[in-house]
Parts: sequence; structure tokens; C-alpha cells
Amino acid sequence: MTQLEYAKKNIITALMRKISQAEKINPQTLLKNIKSGKVVIPNNRLHKISRPCGIGKGLSTKINANIGTSTDKADIGLELQKLSVAQEYKADTIMDLSVGENIAATRIAILKKSLVPVGTVPIYEVAVKAQSQRGGLLNFSGRDILEALSQQAKEGVDFFTVHCGVTRKSLAMLKKHKRLMGIVSRGGAIMASWIIKHQKENPFYEYFDKILDIAYEYDVTLSLGDGMRPGSVLDATDPAQISELKILGELSKRARAKNVQVMIEGPGHVPLDQIKKNILLQKKYCWQAPFYVLGPLVTDVAPGYDHITSAIGGALAASFGADYLCYVTPAEHLRHPSLEDVKEGVIASRIAAHAADIVKYKGRALEWDKKISRARQARNFEQQIALAIDPVKAKLYRRSSLPHESDACTMCGEYCSMKLMEGCLRE
Amino acid sequence: MTQLEYAKKNIITALMRKISQAEKINPQTLLKNIKSGKVVIPNNRLHKISRPCGIGKGLSTKINANIGTSTDKADIGLELQKLSVAQEYKADTIMDLSVGENIAATRIAILKKSLVPVGTVPIYEVAVKAQSQRGGLLNFSGRDILEALSQQAKEGVDFFTVHCGVTRKSLAMLKKHKRLMGIVSRGGAIMASWIIKHQKENPFYEYFDKILDIAYEYDVTLSLGDGMRPGSVLDATDPAQISELKILGELSKRARAKNVQVMIEGPGHVPLDQIKKNILLQKKYCWQAPFYVLGPLVTDVAPGYDHITSAIGGALAASFGADYLCYVTPAEHLRHPSLEDVKEGVIASRIAAHAADIVKYKGRALEWDKKISRARQARNFEQQIALAIDPVKAKLYRRSSLPHESDACTMCGEYCSMKLMEGCLRE
Repeated sequence: MTQLEYAKKNIITALMRKISQAEKINPQTLLKNIKSGKVVIPNNRLHKISRPCGIGKGLSTKINANIGTSTDKADIGLELQKLSVAQEYKADTIMDLSVGENIAATRIAILKKSLVPVGTVPIYEVAVKAQSQRGGLLNFSGRDILEALSQQAKEGVDFFTVHCGVTRKSLAMLKKHKRLMGIVSRGGAIMASWIIKHQKENPFYEYFDKILDIAYEYDVTLSLGDGMRPGSVLDATDPAQISELKILGELSKRARAKNVQVMIEGPGHVPLDQIKKNILLQKKYCWQAPFYVLGPLVTDVAPGYDHITSAIGGALAASFGADYLCYVTPAEHLRHPSLEDVKEGVIASRIAAHAADIVKYKGRALEWDKKISRARQARNFEQQIALAIDPVKAKLYRRSSLPHESDACTMCGEYCSMKLMEGCLRE
Repeated sequence: MTQLEYAKKNIITALMRKISQAEKINPQTLLKNIKSGKVVIPNNRLHKISRPCGIGKGLSTKINANIGTSTDKADIGLELQKLSVAQEYKADTIMDLSVGENIAATRIAILKKSLVPVGTVPIYEVAVKAQSQRGGLLNFSGRDILEALSQQAKEGVDFFTVHCGVTRKSLAMLKKHKRLMGIVSRGGAIMASWIIKHQKENPFYEYFDKILDIAYEYDVTLSLGDGMRPGSVLDATDPAQISELKILGELSKRARAKNVQVMIEGPGHVPLDQIKKNILLQKKYCWQAPFYVLGPLVTDVAPGYDHITSAIGGALAASFGADYLCYVTPAEHLRHPSLEDVKEGVIASRIAAHAADIVKYKGRALEWDKKISRARQARNFEQQIALAIDPVKAKLYRRSSLPHESDACTMCGEYCSMKLMEGCLRE
């Protein structure tokens, strides 16, 4: 049985109990939210992990770190290091987006080493195989897709991104309402190209019931991919994007009916003032399913700093109800991310998630801010550093510039406002 | 005459003309907004600068970089390098917040070298002198303050932060409604301590008319400081902060009546969902005066990354109508900023300002996004890099990881979505 099925039968599983303890919430509340599809627990029943998590209503905002090889850079060792870095800096989940050589070996190594849930985009493996075995990345069939899903599910993958919403219908919308950037999702581009080349409907859409059977068997959570996500703020919230979102909404209902856990992926590049609308539309069309956003990036102009453009959008999105943030690294649009990029991406994303949790959960989330602010007020730098989101960087900064008086910092020195106030109130 | 006085007489000055050209807006509209106090042009009539700017309604969101020595680190050469870095990365204004040795020499050197408007916090010089000449940083009088203001105005300082709102009244509110962090503004802490020690009213408040006379003579813009700004998200929008804001509102009215340009400073640490309210209250209480915010930082937990916590808050604040963002560097709360910190702070702040301008000005601001997205779509990396907010970093990233095929990047390689779509649409 899947976690959703247990919840429907009002059975609190060990996994639910573990998560409710970690989040300090009532297990009955968690069960209720899983039952109604507002929360998912992505954990393949064959995959043993020490840090499972729940995603959705009432739970802290989660963040994902994408790792994986590319055709230009395919080094399993490096990707495993990225996994370690992402886990060290507290990513809640990992996605292996490999498209380089040894794609299966990379995934299996990541699955084995990961302490957290692992997601994949199975169409990548299908396309990579088609390219190497049949001379063209679009030379695959619906059967190949189902085989890849089955294989990966057996290996223990916890959640799949499946691009079911790139269909003839949403493609027609894309054609009718021109965009600046077209399709910028890799999986979306593969499926759109496949539909155009083969003049057939998207197999992810056509064989959705078979996909549900596979997901059900292993309790793989489906993450319905947004192949039509905008790749420029000028394309945001356009008819193609909304058309796909509605399709995903219908499919999410079918998934739940078959006891398959499901979440929805979302944009992308979105101006600040359209973020709220995007969240509300997703919640409405997708029956309150957990919303997993990539960014959103609030401007297109900052390659090298897209961890910041997406921290801005992600914080806002999550404050309005997005449940799960996919990190974006400073390398986005420029290169395959380095270890440092992974770290920067994870931290920026965690900042966004926590800023949103302050809005979502007030006191519960503010405990952390209260503690660090007390340490700051007491000018206890050791404690402030220990409580910081990245104690390593905070310590490095402090050590690089030690003050003459140990209870100040070199910014204000003798003019530390907190010291001044303490002095004057003592007099 | 001040720019405000010219505007009241419906005279478009050379400065107004220059700014309206740079911003591509109608000079009449600019004049109207200066007249009503919604826009200021901080430029001391004795200070020649090649990059003046306007701040307020209808104008692009401006950003400020704080530089200056501390008691722990007082190196004029280093501060001048920071000025260069800040200008290179396009800070619109500079504030010299020096409290170290040679405070006057530092300021004069910065004023001489700066291409952009320079602001100061004159109380720092008053306190530093009191400390060195009279054995205690609070050993100064109202007359000392007026002398410092006169002297700095003569030197060409373009805008002053004056902490007029820390008064007996707002201090009483602070005492009545306890806070986690007390006063975290250096100037605010000095004035609060002075009031408590001397049992007198704040001279900035008491002699406000004399301050206006000095400001008027040189057309120094007043920036009414927020000594009561919250230093923790738990203290945001509290009675002390609001009490001070109302005082600043009254004073802003008096400044305008005397033809003195005036803007208002704001928080600080503010949760995401209180930012809109903060902007609306400022605009209401302060007669639509330009709003200059420090951050706001949307969480307290990220020392080492406060350029990000404040880019989140700043973007949101400016999208709701804040006009001017004071940068925050990654060094905030930890150390005197380095050159690299200054750069990171400026870029993060510019990202926030531009993300907000997309909301404020739509098409006018989106031109930049459109251009870079077109270059991205065409996979013209050279052009994309040239258009990036930091072409140096973007180029470095690109060069560090060159792809096998020059029209892709090492992230997606052969699986570049834009390449895929182009290929399939060509078939």
C-alpha cells in the first residue's frame, strides 16, 4: 500500500510518525493532509533513507538540489561529492538529472549513498538510450518510457518528474500564442519534439494509467513536470503554461484516485507581481496538490546570480503557499554547477524557504530567528555563528577580521549600537 | 535656490533635464514630482558629479552602497577602492559612514573622487570628536551638531542622515513595548544614549529649523534616519518604529515648507508579509516622500548571506513603492566589508531594484530582460554575457567550463532545450 492508501484507511504509518515528530506536528493532522492529497511523502518502499520528508500543507517548506552529469561533464565521483555537499547544507531532497555517460550507474550510486529522497526525470534516460542505441534521441516509443519507469522504480527512485502536460493541446496553445523563449524545459523540449516528429500524442499522457500502476507498486511519488514553464519573465503566466497546468490538474485527480501520491511542478521565470496568481491558480486547478517550483526567477538579467533571483521569487512563492523549492545555482544559464555552486544554491534556497515559513508558521518558524537574535544582542559571536544558516562561512568571515574588542565586530567597532545601549542603560 | 524651490516656481533646471533624459521621462513629469516632494535630487550645489540621480516616483529604483572606516579598520585607500568598486558595479549613490581615524580626510577624499551623490551621517563625526577631544562620545551639544552639519555641507555632502525621530516620545514607546533587539541603528543608539544621559530632548529634533537652514543653503537633501528600525524580524512594525515614523512624517512636511528636499529611511528586519504594510504606512505618514530602506532583511538567521535576505526584502519593498535601497553586504553582522563584499552587495541590490522596476514600470524595465532573453534563445553567449548584470562573473563562469559545442553550455550540453526545439522546428 502507498502512504496515500494508508492515510485513506486512517492508518498512521511509521513514516508518518517519523515525519510528524521531526516537524513537531500532530500525526493526525499529517494523516488528514496526506489523505486529501495536500501532502506527499516521496519515499519508494524499496529505498531506505535516514532523512525522509513530507512536502505540503502544514510542513516546513522543503528544498531540492539538482545534481547529475551532462554530456560535457560526466564524472560520477563529482556528482557523489555534490550529493554530500547538498546533504551537508541540508537539502531535503536530491534530483539526479544525469544525461551523461553511465547514466544508470550514476543513478544507482546516488540512490545508494543518499540519505534523502531521490528524484529523477526518466525521459532523460530514455532519450540518452535512444541516442546511443538507435541513433537519435527521439527514437523511442511509449513502451521504452514504461520500461525505464519500471526499471527506475525497482531501483528505489522516490519520485519521478513526468512531462505529461506537453500534449497536442498545450502545444497548440504554444503555437497560437507566441513566446519569446519557447520551451526551456529539457524534458518538455524532448516531448514536444517527439510529438511533432512522430505526429502522435505524448505517451506520458496517453499511458498515464500504466504509469500510475508502476508508481503505485513502489509508492513512487509523481511530480507532474512543467514542460511549458516560462523561460523569460516576458513569457510568464501565458496560455501555454496555463493550458498545461489544467492538464496536470486533471491528471493529479486521476493519480489520487489510484492511490498514487502526486505533486505539481511550476515556473520558472515570473515577475514578482505574478507570483501570487501562479500559486493560487496551481492550488485551484490541481486540487491543492503540493506545488514544487523552480525559482521562480524574478528577472532574466542576472546569469551568475540566479540563486539570488530565484531566492527572491522562491521566498515569495512559498509565502503564498508553494511547498517545495527547487534550488537554482549561480551557474544556471552558464555552466554545469561546481561543488561551490551547489552549496550556494542550497543556502539561497534555504533562506527563501525559511523566510516563507516565518509567514506560514509564525512562532514555530521564528524560534530560530529569536535564538540567533538573542545571541546577537548579547554579542555572543560564538553562539551567533553556531546558529547561522552556514556556520562555516560565518566563522570564516569573523576570523578574517577580528576586532580589538571581542564583543563587537569590525564593522562598528566601538560604535556598536548594542554596546552603546547597554552602556547607557547601565549608567 | 534648491531643486525643490525651482520646481515650485515651475523652472526646469539643467539637473532636472539631465535626469529626465537619463531616465527617458518627460521633464514636466519629473518637475511635478519634485514639486510635490515625491522625488528628490540629492546634489549639494557645491558638489560637481558626473552621475547625479533622482530618487522617487516615476524613476528607476536607486541603490546605495555604504562605505567608510571603522575604529578597527581605518584605511582611506581601501575606502576609495570600495568607492571605485561600487561605482564600477553601478551603485547610484555612496554613503560614507566612517567612524575611524581621519574621519574628515576620508570624507573629503571620497567627495572629491565620487562620480555619484555622497551621503553622510554627521552624528558620527560629532561623536568621534567628542570621544577624542572630550573623553566621551556623548559629550557634545546641539551646537556641535550644527557646526558639523555646516562644515560637511560646505564640503559638498549631497545628503545627510539625521536621526531626528529618536525623541523622548519614541523612546518612551520603546521602553513601554519591549523589544528583542532594542536599538540597532548606530546613530539611533548615540542619540538615545545622549537623551538618557543628558535628560534633554534630541537636538536634531529641537533644532530642526536650524538644520533646515543649513540644508537649504547648499541644497543638501535630508534623509530622516530611522533610529528605531527593527533589528530582528520579531521587532518589526512595533510601536517604537511607528511612533518614530510619524515624527519623521511631520518633520518631512516642515522640510518641504522650507524648500528643503527630504526623504525617509526605513527598516531593517521585516518578515515578508509585513513589508507592504511598512511601505504603505511610510507613504501615508510621510506625505509620499521618497522611501529609503535598509534591506529589509526577511530573516535574522543568515549572517554571511544578508545580501540575499535583503535582496528578497528589498525587491518586495521596492515593488510596493520603496524608491531607494541601501545595499547590505554578506559581511553584515560579521565584519567590516571587503572589496568583494561591496561588489556582492551592490549586485544583489541591483537585482532587487530591477526585479521591482519590472513591476513598477513593466515594458520600460522589461527591455533589458527582453534583450538578454533573445540572446539566450539564440544561444549567443557572448551577447548574453555582455548584457548580464555582472559581465565579469558571467564570463568567468562560461570560460571555466567550455562546452564541446559552442552554442550550448555544459549544464545541458547536447540536451539544450532551445537547441532541441530549433532542430525539431526545422525538420
